[in-house]
Amino acid sequence: MQAEIIAVGTELLLGQITNTNARFLSEQLNSLGISVYFHSVVGDNPDRLAAQLAIAHSRSDLVLLTGGLGPTKDDLTKEIVARHAGRSLTLDLQAMETIQHFFETRQVPMTENNRRQALVIEGAHVFPNETGLAPGMAVKHEGVWYLLFPGPPSELTPMFKNHARPFLESLLADQHIVHSKVMRFCGIGESALESRLEDLIDQQTNPTIAPLAKEGEVTLRLTSLAKSKAEAEQQMRSLIAEIQSRVGKYQYGWDEETLEEVLVRLLQKRNLTVAAAESCTGGLVSHLITRVSGASQVFPGGIVCYSTGVKAAELGVSPEVLRQDGAVSEAGARMLAEGVRQKFNTNLGVSVTGVAGPEQQEGKPVGLVYIGVASAQDTTVQKLNLGGLRNTIQQRAAKLALFYLIKTVETLV
Amino acid sequence: MQAEIIAVGTELLLGQITNTNARFLSEQLNSLGISVYFHSVVGDNPDRLAAQLAIAHSRSDLVLLTGGLGPTKDDLTKEIVARHAGRSLTLDLQAMETIQHFFETRQVPMTENNRRQALVIEGAHVFPNETGLAPGMAVKHEGVWYLLFPGPPSELTPMFKNHARPFLESLLADQHIVHSKVMRFCGIGESALESRLEDLIDQQTNPTIAPLAKEGEVTLRLTSLAKSKAEAEQQMRSLIAEIQSRVGKYQYGWDEETLEEVLVRLLQKRNLTVAAAESCTGGLVSHLITRVSGASQVFPGGIVCYSTGVKAAELGVSPEVLRQDGAVSEAGARMLAEGVRQKFNTNLGVSVTGVAGPEQQEGKPVGLVYIGVASAQDTTVQKLNLGGLRNTIQQRAAKLALFYLIKTVETLV
Repeated sequence: MQAEIIAVGTELLLGQITNTNARFLSEQLNSLGISVYFHSVVGDNPDRLAAQLAIAHSRSDLVLLTGGLGPTKDDLTKEIVARHAGRSLTLDLQAMETIQHFFETRQVPMTENNRRQALVIEGAHVFPNETGLAPGMAVKHEGVWYLLFPGPPSELTPMFKNHARPFLESLLADQHIVHSKVMRFCGIGESALESRLEDLIDQQTNPTIAPLAKEGEVTLRLTSLAKSKAEAEQQMRSLIAEIQSRVGKYQYGWDEETLEEVLVRLLQKRNLTVAAAESCTGGLVSHLITRVSGASQVFPGGIVCYSTGVKAAELGVSPEVLRQDGAVSEAGARMLAEGVRQKFNTNLGVSVTGVAGPEQQEGKPVGLVYIGVASAQDTTVQKLNLGGLRNTIQQRAAKLALFYLIKTVETLV
Repeated sequence: MQAEIIAVGTELLLGQITNTNARFLSEQLNSLGISVYFHSVVGDNPDRLAAQLAIAHSRSDLVLLTGGLGPTKDDLTKEIVARHAGRSLTLDLQAMETIQHFFETRQVPMTENNRRQALVIEGAHVFPNETGLAPGMAVKHEGVWYLLFPGPPSELTPMFKNHARPFLESLLADQHIVHSKVMRFCGIGESALESRLEDLIDQQTNPTIAPLAKEGEVTLRLTSLAKSKAEAEQQMRSLIAEIQSRVGKYQYGWDEETLEEVLVRLLQKRNLTVAAAESCTGGLVSHLITRVSGASQVFPGGIVCYSTGVKAAELGVSPEVLRQDGAVSEAGARMLAEGVRQKFNTNLGVSVTGVAGPEQQEGKPVGLVYIGVASAQDTTVQKLNLGGLRNTIQQRAAKLALFYLIKTVETLV
């Protein structure tokens, strides 16, 4: 199956936003074993969209369109695809109900425009919108499937995962399946990871191995082609064991898991709590933990100790350490982690103190960061030299703090 | 002049990276007054790239290509464009010198592959690469300009700004210029903003007005077509005054400014400090402030008071308020803002307490958020009903906290 993705929206051509939907959908389609050969972006213009549909029709079996399903007169995607397929638009009752309910609960009058969002192409398979108003849909025309999605990623992402992906899987059911598994690593760079796995990557055929570096972490995507998911997992088993025997200590999770989710679930399972003392990350570690629903069971709070005065007054960092070692030091990180653990009466305390830049501090270079983890048993401090600009250093330091917490909890008996 | 942008690279179609170059180039071209009508992405495949060039040739006067200029055999862009234009490739001596120098200074042997990077299309105008090895170039074929750029943004961005932009300006020298200004708003929704400006938006010709909603904020882009930047600004002046007379109280900044930058600069200018007490945002307000370099002058720190116990023990929220009103309440927000201001001895205190979801809390609905701002004069509390899922509510609440801080500081005498 050959696919292409057409994004509709003048805001993309003006450079106001980036077409992140194309990346997301490409990743999803590739993980289903569907090859994506083209991306395009067209503005909110009926003639240019129609012309682009004609081009896509001539070269693809599957055309995904994003954007242009909203209530305004700029939103033309449904109309143009319907005309292209020689069909009319019809009211989808379930979508209409969702829209009416939305306006009723908010006690806002519904305009005629909003009714347009409930129109779908005649005979289409409808994808409900769980986080917005405009439904998505799939129609087949002369052997080519057209799938329409809303533009906002917060609507498209759940619609694709919960509705369109199962729909595509059923279309592909009689073919070979492609099964992917992602291994997630932190605390090791991409090139260091690759060099330890070089022979495995060179020999790859089925499963394939694709490394990818993200901000502060690295992933390996393993992809198997097989007759069933069970067969694919069987093919992966020994490869995963071999990878883990070499670099397993850097792995923190699988597939879509984030560091903060893994940490919160692990603390819940072990019935443990943590508090955070953050200097250079300024609250990012705490915020990442509280992004996870259920965080309140494991995280009472933290101190953002950006100034030296707060480090001393709130967390008991001694004047002697501040004078001799400075706030950015192993002793500083240790006292902050221990201080916050004591203050919040938690099982664990984590601290981050470093130089995010752009200026050096206490004569210490930009990128020098200490991360402390205190438990009832002991306190460990990691010294790091992180690359990048200010915000990258903050992001990397926060992710590493979560990673060291996970690794500490894993070793607690 | 009608332009389109073609990105070449299988990694984009696999969803491994996002096509941020298209956004950057679109913004640049629009700011030059060049309309962008299409974006496309094709893989490293000679036939599909040639077919895409034929499509582009039929509908655009200016075609920008990114990627595929590197040393490997996957890098085909130059070869295919040369064939499309009926030209051959020739060695560019300056590029060759740069490449030789690169390998000499690193004492790494140069491979034959690297020599390929110094080849350019016969008769092309060459753009030097200041941050990498492969030069860019411009060639004209049957009235259509083709501009080729390397794929890595770190190479493309300076090449475009320093070489291609002046080149395009010289092509456009006899035409009009386009000047844009962005007004940034918070605390008002897109539709509410639009309805207050409906007549202005309906009448728009020159300048044009384009609203855009982002997470927790709205922007208006005003764009003028004129003979000079001064004339464009003159055309905008009365429109800006009219917009500000209607919705000025929601404006916080201009162009690329963020809420946190505006806040930190304003506090610096007024010589004021702030501390934060965060419940449902879990440290995000503090982190956003510390993203801005120089934040340490105005922000000593904050408390992440995720649990009720921390609210009481660290910030003096009274048992009576917690029992009668609950932690998510106007009285709670007030005590948190005043408590953190006192604890950190700052001029201002900000607090965020609310229900981020997915579960309701204290019998209060998801999305209910109170934001308190305490100063020496008084304490104000805003009650909000925010839409969206957990992380969206956190993002919106944090941005609104920054916005109310800005508005409070602006009113302080």
